[in-house]
Amino acid sequence: MAGYLRDDLSDDEIDRQAALYGPLAASVRELVDAVIRTEADDEEIRTARAEIEAITERLRKQQADGPFGVRFNGEGRGRAWGNAVVGLRNAVAPPLQMQHEPSGRAWADFHLGAAYEGPPGLVHGGVAALILDQVLGEAAGAGGKPGMTGTLTLRYRRGTPLGDLHVEAHIDRVDGIKTYAVGHISDAEGVTVEADGVFILPKWARKAIADNESAAAPSRFE
Amino acid sequence: MAGYLRDDLSDDEIDRQAALYGPLAASVRELVDAVIRTEADDEEIRTARAEIEAITERLRKQQADGPFGVRFNGEGRGRAWGNAVVGLRNAVAPPLQMQHEPSGRAWADFHLGAAYEGPPGLVHGGVAALILDQVLGEAAGAGGKPGMTGTLTLRYRRGTPLGDLHVEAHIDRVDGIKTYAVGHISDAEGVTVEADGVFILPKWARKAIADNESAAAPSRFE
Repeated sequence: MAGYLRDDLSDDEIDRQAALYGPLAASVRELVDAVIRTEADDEEIRTARAEIEAITERLRKQQADGPFGVRFNGEGRGRAWGNAVVGLRNAVAPPLQMQHEPSGRAWADFHLGAAYEGPPGLVHGGVAALILDQVLGEAAGAGGKPGMTGTLTLRYRRGTPLGDLHVEAHIDRVDGIKTYAVGHISDAEGVTVEADGVFILPKWARKAIADNESAAAPSRFE
Repeated sequence: MAGYLRDDLSDDEIDRQAALYGPLAASVRELVDAVIRTEADDEEIRTARAEIEAITERLRKQQADGPFGVRFNGEGRGRAWGNAVVGLRNAVAPPLQMQHEPSGRAWADFHLGAAYEGPPGLVHGGVAALILDQVLGEAAGAGGKPGMTGTLTLRYRRGTPLGDLHVEAHIDRVDGIKTYAVGHISDAEGVTVEADGVFILPKWARKAIADNESAAAPSRFE
């Protein structure tokens, strides 16, 4: 699959780019929050819009034709910088800073603000699903059993308040190309949403692994 | 629930605010996309960041204490302007322009760009879940049977390409306070993701309806 691009950047160059783009995206996340909450006067709003459009125009003078994709260097270090949950350069992503264990576990502590609201003051039920899909998939990949989501089931125990949250997932069992993962989101009071999912290794990745094209067979389908 | 705020703005004032804030959030969505895709030089990136931070600081001089919530006027016109899927003021939201039918149907045609990526070139599986949660919930509400998500199940038929997409949902059946809704996302080639969900009227809303506090019992739990 063309989108998994091996570009052989050095680790130092990747660190340098992360230090450049990470703070840029973080500044946009703050702007997203401010646009939801601002009570500035109309003139201020119009001025902000014009300035934002001018910045965007300058950034777009040189830009990639399409989405970021997932890029790897020669050491297999992956960058899913456009990913909607963990993407360093994606202001839609909170972004989650994932932790992994090779036993097939993944977890993160994170914060959700005004941009992730559904019912008043609560995390959008679909945002909880978005995050759990990513983390269950990362647990599968961490255990060496990656796949794309086949099915995903969410059970909402109660509303998840906006604020500081925790998410974790682990591999429950593996059956051939299917990896079964389970997980949940919790706040300080306990579990709010539970999830289980089946993650399936796509045909093209099975072929790449069989052909020993390791660079074409990513450890996670972020 | 305090977050469903009745503020009695006139329809004209709501239209005026929509015309002010809608384009502002739209400009931020373009900026989010540009930040993922830009190949501008380092100096340009640093300048953009400084300018964005200055805009945010000005917008934050007067701002709401917390998230937007869901606000209603005297005519029952609701504004879920902070909602993560449909929010007019939320640059995380694509946003979907929902259509409804009182028979209990909801649908939208929409476009997803680089900010909604999971696997390279494909919609993040969790983003598909996010959108389906919203649209199934809107179908339930459109049919007069609103609820908060109780369970949600997604079946991924194939990868959903980034680009122009369609989503639709309808009420399958109603059992007391539980509304069962089904739906799917499709591209030009057909269905990519199917969903079914149970939406449950919360206790506080049941009480508000019993007490005939119509303003406190929203038609949808956006």
